[in-house]
Amino acid sequence: MKKKNKKVNAAILVIGNEILSGRTQDKNVVFISNWLNSNCGITVNEVRIIPDIQTQIVKNVLDLSKRFNYVFTTGGIGPTHDDITAVSISKAFKVKYEYHKQAYQILENYYGKSKFNDGRKKMAKMPRGSKLILNPSSAAPGFIINNVISLPGVPSILNSMIENCKKYLIKGLKVYSRTINLYTVESNISKPLGNIQKKYKSSVDIGSYPFFRLGKIGVSIVTRSTSKTKLQRTNKDLIKLIKSKKIKLLKH
Amino acid sequence: MKKKNKKVNAAILVIGNEILSGRTQDKNVVFISNWLNSNCGITVNEVRIIPDIQTQIVKNVLDLSKRFNYVFTTGGIGPTHDDITAVSISKAFKVKYEYHKQAYQILENYYGKSKFNDGRKKMAKMPRGSKLILNPSSAAPGFIINNVISLPGVPSILNSMIENCKKYLIKGLKVYSRTINLYTVESNISKPLGNIQKKYKSSVDIGSYPFFRLGKIGVSIVTRSTSKTKLQRTNKDLIKLIKSKKIKLLKH
Repeated sequence: MKKKNKKVNAAILVIGNEILSGRTQDKNVVFISNWLNSNCGITVNEVRIIPDIQTQIVKNVLDLSKRFNYVFTTGGIGPTHDDITAVSISKAFKVKYEYHKQAYQILENYYGKSKFNDGRKKMAKMPRGSKLILNPSSAAPGFIINNVISLPGVPSILNSMIENCKKYLIKGLKVYSRTINLYTVESNISKPLGNIQKKYKSSVDIGSYPFFRLGKIGVSIVTRSTSKTKLQRTNKDLIKLIKSKKIKLLKH
Repeated sequence: MKKKNKKVNAAILVIGNEILSGRTQDKNVVFISNWLNSNCGITVNEVRIIPDIQTQIVKNVLDLSKRFNYVFTTGGIGPTHDDITAVSISKAFKVKYEYHKQAYQILENYYGKSKFNDGRKKMAKMPRGSKLILNPSSAAPGFIINNVISLPGVPSILNSMIENCKKYLIKGLKVYSRTINLYTVESNISKPLGNIQKKYKSSVDIGSYPFFRLGKIGVSIVTRSTSKTKLQRTNKDLIKLIKSKKIKLLKH
């Protein structure tokens, strides 16, 4: 994994009617985003959830792959008729959709020649020029072509494969974050908080999120920055503000 | 609520760094999508998650509002500096960002004159011409302008407000769905399943989703259609296929 001393970003393209319809709760965005930031210093800057429709996949893959350093797609690489991610990405990049020799070998070994049916063979078809993302839990590999990495939609399988993406990624600057939880309401601190944000403009990102816990109302102040020093300074200012307002800090 | 005898669609625009960074698990997409389909016959066809950046919000609001019947935004309508949804939507539609008289009144009554500070007043500012989505749990209203409805990001508050969106929506055709859970693997049924999909092409949507439950592997076959009759016919075909393959149906 090479290192790049600047910000590296990514988009996630979730492909699947079951997520859009509300039938299935997506869990991959949280997982991929956390993993990318902690392990690769890569920040997810946009997520899209789209249906299993080829024209939609083509359009979104092209758009996102131009705008971001990496695009992670989830879903649609299984054996059934609604698994159209690989063929769609082939269309997007105008390359052949064909058997990947190594993937074919892996799957044939895994299932055995006699049980290697058409559905299973389909999982060896990819855009020409793809490199494999190996799958330690259920064999069927993901792939990377250009800056687009395709992973399956089942969270447990995706999670088991994510480390195998690392060798294809350029490492960026890690974003550090700190959270302070307070027993107060947002409007009580919104003005001075805005002033602190202005002071550290662009170098530190301050987010304010109300929460309800055990019947009590509170606010989480989340600070994020690629600079540890600036993050510390911001948090010093925040603690000063909290003390001046006599707000109770929540231990967690 | 007027009724329209055709498909009505929507997009959801999730606005919030905390969702993109993986700090917070979004729960609003599942809720809004299910509610829209069950109560209004409206199908969510795209979701985007974007950061708290004005240019991004403007661009996405304009793009989605042109392409879909409705756009639901979540997040960014609170009192702090990172709450920029209302001002951004004003920019998108080139209207003034100003106090909404009724919203101002509601918030002033709720907090009392002496505690109605600048942060709280900010929650009464909206794009000119907005109508209110009343908030029974914490007073601060959402709003609708053109075909864009803005709701807060906190799930419990959003959930309490959703019924108040109904009067602004045109009802479309409800999508009915059925799920069959099987103890098999996808590749065992992928070919005949694809044929059934071809037979009902465009009128019924068949999805196939692997699952792992209590250590067993299975597949959920989800059928969706605006026609109850066609849904029944598809499911008859599916049952025939399952019987012919001697696959065990899972009771649920």
